[in-house]
Amino acid sequence: MDKMFLGIDLGGTNIKVGCFDSQLNLVCKTAAPTRADMGPDVVIDKISDTAGKLLADNGLSLDAVDAVGIGSPGPSKIDKGIVISAPNLPRFRNIPLRKLVSQRLSKPTIFENDANAACWGEHVAGAGKGVDDMLFFTLGTGIGGGIISNGELVHGFKDNAAELGHIIIRKDGRPCPCGQQGCVEAYASAAATSKRATEAIQAGAQSSLREVFESNGEITCKDVFEHYTAGDRLAKNVAEGTCSALGLLCVSLLHVTGPQRIVFAGGMIAAGEILLKRIRHFFRQYIWPLKPEPVEICFATLGENAGIIGTAALALHARRQGKL
Amino acid sequence: MDKMFLGIDLGGTNIKVGCFDSQLNLVCKTAAPTRADMGPDVVIDKISDTAGKLLADNGLSLDAVDAVGIGSPGPSKIDKGIVISAPNLPRFRNIPLRKLVSQRLSKPTIFENDANAACWGEHVAGAGKGVDDMLFFTLGTGIGGGIISNGELVHGFKDNAAELGHIIIRKDGRPCPCGQQGCVEAYASAAATSKRATEAIQAGAQSSLREVFESNGEITCKDVFEHYTAGDRLAKNVAEGTCSALGLLCVSLLHVTGPQRIVFAGGMIAAGEILLKRIRHFFRQYIWPLKPEPVEICFATLGENAGIIGTAALALHARRQGKL
Repeated sequence: MDKMFLGIDLGGTNIKVGCFDSQLNLVCKTAAPTRADMGPDVVIDKISDTAGKLLADNGLSLDAVDAVGIGSPGPSKIDKGIVISAPNLPRFRNIPLRKLVSQRLSKPTIFENDANAACWGEHVAGAGKGVDDMLFFTLGTGIGGGIISNGELVHGFKDNAAELGHIIIRKDGRPCPCGQQGCVEAYASAAATSKRATEAIQAGAQSSLREVFESNGEITCKDVFEHYTAGDRLAKNVAEGTCSALGLLCVSLLHVTGPQRIVFAGGMIAAGEILLKRIRHFFRQYIWPLKPEPVEICFATLGENAGIIGTAALALHARRQGKL
Repeated sequence: MDKMFLGIDLGGTNIKVGCFDSQLNLVCKTAAPTRADMGPDVVIDKISDTAGKLLADNGLSLDAVDAVGIGSPGPSKIDKGIVISAPNLPRFRNIPLRKLVSQRLSKPTIFENDANAACWGEHVAGAGKGVDDMLFFTLGTGIGGGIISNGELVHGFKDNAAELGHIIIRKDGRPCPCGQQGCVEAYASAAATSKRATEAIQAGAQSSLREVFESNGEITCKDVFEHYTAGDRLAKNVAEGTCSALGLLCVSLLHVTGPQRIVFAGGMIAAGEILLKRIRHFFRQYIWPLKPEPVEICFATLGENAGIIGTAALALHARRQGKL
């Protein structure tokens, strides 16, 4: 029988597990609450139990599994598979996640951070399929990233690469939660978009968003894009600020790693076509006119499955290269 | 006898040729005028003659040479070894330089652009030795770059990578010769540094640079750094503008490819320790405080030999990998 590959996407809220064949077709998947508050031991139990139950429920045994991939949030030592810390996994401190999962499931296991894993998923099976040089952005509360160069993930020295939300687009600009000023994340994340709109309303700007703020106590990024589409001028200014920051970022990064395709993922892409259209618009506005740049800017296609596909695919890739 | 590797650095003014053993020790080197004005045929003759004469003068024959590397300025198709165009080689239009040199010398030949070749030289034998993730900047009239990620040069799709001078550090900022606005090259190249100083003098600023401008008709980047060191306030402001742009660039790029070391080369590094010290200062000022980043910022060490060492080393590397 064809060997299977398990992809595990550990998040602060849910553990997702997918079982894939060696062509990366999804055989079955499931999800269970992480119970991060219970600490690492319980979380490791949950991972193991969830994977075991998924296989059992689908008439499979661990014998059918060739290798496992696991993705986790937070700063980590990727080679060693150690989670240094993770805001969404509060009691994780230097947890050797790869080793623990490998021991529990008795399978060779590869570890990756969650953004890189999702990037790899889109690379092998989604919006970046067939593309050896790509950039991947997750637009959520923050902005995360992944880079594929010459068909491989870029990790950098001590895994410092691909912190793409913290590229500085404005010197001495808006403060970013990371401690820097002027990061693209401080302008263009969902949180920053919402914050810029809220600040404008609080400063007295006229806008249909005022009613939203008064009835909900907040303005979400989704509100901003909805009111932009509906024709509100302030919402337009705020949303265009987001899109222009992202378009500028694409120009700068084109000149760094030379991607063929730039893929945007994350909750914010629910804003839809208008977001994509305006990022492309600003990219064309800021890029040099001398040489046409055939970079494609598009949305991710795998949604919440990117992590499980990516981790399973990384396990398969490492096995094929004889590295796992 | 140990096989030799020829490194050829084609520039607008000179052709440099070096002969190296398989440990990349320099055996002999020479240089000759390019005569770019005479067109590609003559230049190819000059390359071949210069290499042949170097070997003959040192009691070597072409038989001793295993492979050749050649570096060239200008947009090019690196894999194919074609120079698309080059400002300093005015009659070069889609010239298959790799093939022509390979035919003339009857040797397997590898092609690289000049900035990447110099970057590879520093990587194998200079300031980036032993470092698998590095960034390389040439600070001259413009700003060029090279990226090494996981021990290999990053080329990107259609060789679009590593145009590091055209990262945008200020939206709607100073116009850059490339047609974009706010590129780091528009603030921190030697030409931009000189231009910003000249603009300030023309606008009436008080400075010891005024006398330089009045007697020489121009202010060079070298003048700016000399007068900065001597205590002139305007020169300080201009030079600090250059260093802060470069420090900011280092922060942003640390978050992209995660280099262990960032190496500055080119004519501008003649400014010396003060340039390096201030780039490091601004790097520390702009980087996040949360996580110490152990990146090293330093000067290149190979000087004008970087190109010949780099191209010879690329030929050796490709032969060892069975790719040439």
